[in-house]
Amino acid sequence: MHHPTHFTVPAIADIGDAALTARLQHVLDHKTKPLGSLGRLERLALRIGQVLGSEAPQLVQPQMVVFAGDHGLVARGVSAYPSDVTWQMVENFLAGGAAVSVLARQHGLALNVVDCGVARDIAPREAAPGQPRLWLRKVAPGTQDASIGPAMSAAHCAQALANGMEVVRGLPGNALLLGEMGIGNTSVASLLLARLCGVSLQDCTGAGTGLDAAGIARKRAVLEQALAANAHATAPLDALAALGGFEVATMTGAVLQAAAERRVIVVDGFITTAAVLVAARLQPAVLQRCVFAHSSGEPGHALMLTQLQAEPLLDMGLRLGEGSGAALAWPLLQSACAMLREMASFEAAGVSERGAA
Amino acid sequence: MHHPTHFTVPAIADIGDAALTARLQHVLDHKTKPLGSLGRLERLALRIGQVLGSEAPQLVQPQMVVFAGDHGLVARGVSAYPSDVTWQMVENFLAGGAAVSVLARQHGLALNVVDCGVARDIAPREAAPGQPRLWLRKVAPGTQDASIGPAMSAAHCAQALANGMEVVRGLPGNALLLGEMGIGNTSVASLLLARLCGVSLQDCTGAGTGLDAAGIARKRAVLEQALAANAHATAPLDALAALGGFEVATMTGAVLQAAAERRVIVVDGFITTAAVLVAARLQPAVLQRCVFAHSSGEPGHALMLTQLQAEPLLDMGLRLGEGSGAALAWPLLQSACAMLREMASFEAAGVSERGAA
Repeated sequence: MHHPTHFTVPAIADIGDAALTARLQHVLDHKTKPLGSLGRLERLALRIGQVLGSEAPQLVQPQMVVFAGDHGLVARGVSAYPSDVTWQMVENFLAGGAAVSVLARQHGLALNVVDCGVARDIAPREAAPGQPRLWLRKVAPGTQDASIGPAMSAAHCAQALANGMEVVRGLPGNALLLGEMGIGNTSVASLLLARLCGVSLQDCTGAGTGLDAAGIARKRAVLEQALAANAHATAPLDALAALGGFEVATMTGAVLQAAAERRVIVVDGFITTAAVLVAARLQPAVLQRCVFAHSSGEPGHALMLTQLQAEPLLDMGLRLGEGSGAALAWPLLQSACAMLREMASFEAAGVSERGAA
Repeated sequence: MHHPTHFTVPAIADIGDAALTARLQHVLDHKTKPLGSLGRLERLALRIGQVLGSEAPQLVQPQMVVFAGDHGLVARGVSAYPSDVTWQMVENFLAGGAAVSVLARQHGLALNVVDCGVARDIAPREAAPGQPRLWLRKVAPGTQDASIGPAMSAAHCAQALANGMEVVRGLPGNALLLGEMGIGNTSVASLLLARLCGVSLQDCTGAGTGLDAAGIARKRAVLEQALAANAHATAPLDALAALGGFEVATMTGAVLQAAAERRVIVVDGFITTAAVLVAARLQPAVLQRCVFAHSSGEPGHALMLTQLQAEPLLDMGLRLGEGSGAALAWPLLQSACAMLREMASFEAAGVSERGAA
């Protein structure tokens, strides 16, 4: 395997195409419905049409990818669950019993699980057709403790980013749904929000998988130490390496590659949005390809979405991760495309347009 | 056909079953996820499990029913579209080109269209298997002008209610999705909200299919006249007859029958919620069977949902009706059931429960 020590950010073209956008808007405005009456679904249709470059977009072979990794910070008590749960849940994803497994089956999403840096070794296995696929792309067995220094080296971070790009290059289809698993990774998302957006840790630290008030206070104190121990890491890739998360770094590479290929990127909750935040700081046009599935119950997520001027589809108080919110929102993307492709126009259906009133 | 002059409200049993609810909550709490982390989806699963009386609920043969009717009030300029659009859209539903047609196909919902009182005659036709089914249950070709007197007689209202019960009795499956079509019927919903809940018309009158500010002011003045012309009609069934809507009355009957049979009732926007409001004033336990799909862009809808203490699933600024919001939310109901049936427990998956933190 090639081990890069430096990561070259791929070019991401602007997909703003005024002529296509005007044609899409014309199609939407002449469907048999009052103007704009499908609300956010119309804006979603416009977005997908722009990404896929079509007035009759079709989503094909959607890929749910769950990026997994462990975190040195967990030794400091930032999570309600032990690190061992990360690999246990990876096994649960592969066995079909996790929320994302159930939802991926329901919606016909191919399920991929990537070991980006899980502490425990995951046994390789062959995937039967239609079964979850395991990608072994472990950079190291968990990150270092970010409260006393960088979570990962620049070389490890570059490796994770390259892994993410390589995984996406190997996937079929034109849509990528982001998921993640990593005990402790709401801490990583909070740290990246604090560092890259200047939001106070007071505002961006939450209960994660279920800390009580004392636990949140302890977590916040540890995160303050992590910011102080990595005070120099302010540029996006430096912050990513210092504040860590192999799954977040691998996902960031995946987002950049998917954006370069003009895939529709469906963003889940707080942690996947953190990867998009890093990618967008490197290449802002990444955001043109993103659909934000939901606003989660983790308080930092709404702040991060605001930073990205994102308009999430769902608001159901989800705080599970795994890609569960992306999977739940997926049928809305299919509906948006079906509306563009299949709804009749006023003219075709012989329906009167609005009167003078 | 039997023509009732009086409507007998069916009995609707309380389905609160503390033992079943406790078992459902236990199942939810032992799935492999942090406690409560699927947010509103968990409350939805609990609700469906209660309605269907099962810890492993399965939704079968879901029926989308679009109730259509015309309104005498439209002659007073309360809508941006002419009444003719009602039958034109009925034809569009049957031909497969409307939003609800597209969404019903996407989700495998059987599509039923009921002529409850459309002004134009709809030609009867045989439905091929898998194609939309037309029910001819016209009480009269549109209601009278409610701004000068009752929209319908008590006998006509009773007939419409009985028709709705009869249609639902003829439908298979355990889930009813409510849809409607009727130029002018946001006026009916506003009037019922004003009369049954004491909300001012100032607050509950909106743009409907797209009135401008002057149009809304004109609509509001006409609705004030309708309330004054029917000042005596304060009891639920009297208000329903006086303020009208054959499609709303037929839908009210359908809701009562579906509730009596313990079907899951998926409520769409402002007009379908108005039918549920009337039904709930007759039999409050109706609400135990209801899932509210979304909060619409029509301002009165949020007020009506608050009156019903409803927690809608989506908030996408929809204001189309037809059942489009109910159809868009449908996959969430399926996800809630799949989670209950298919997710692994901590014990079964060998995943550690949370630590002491």
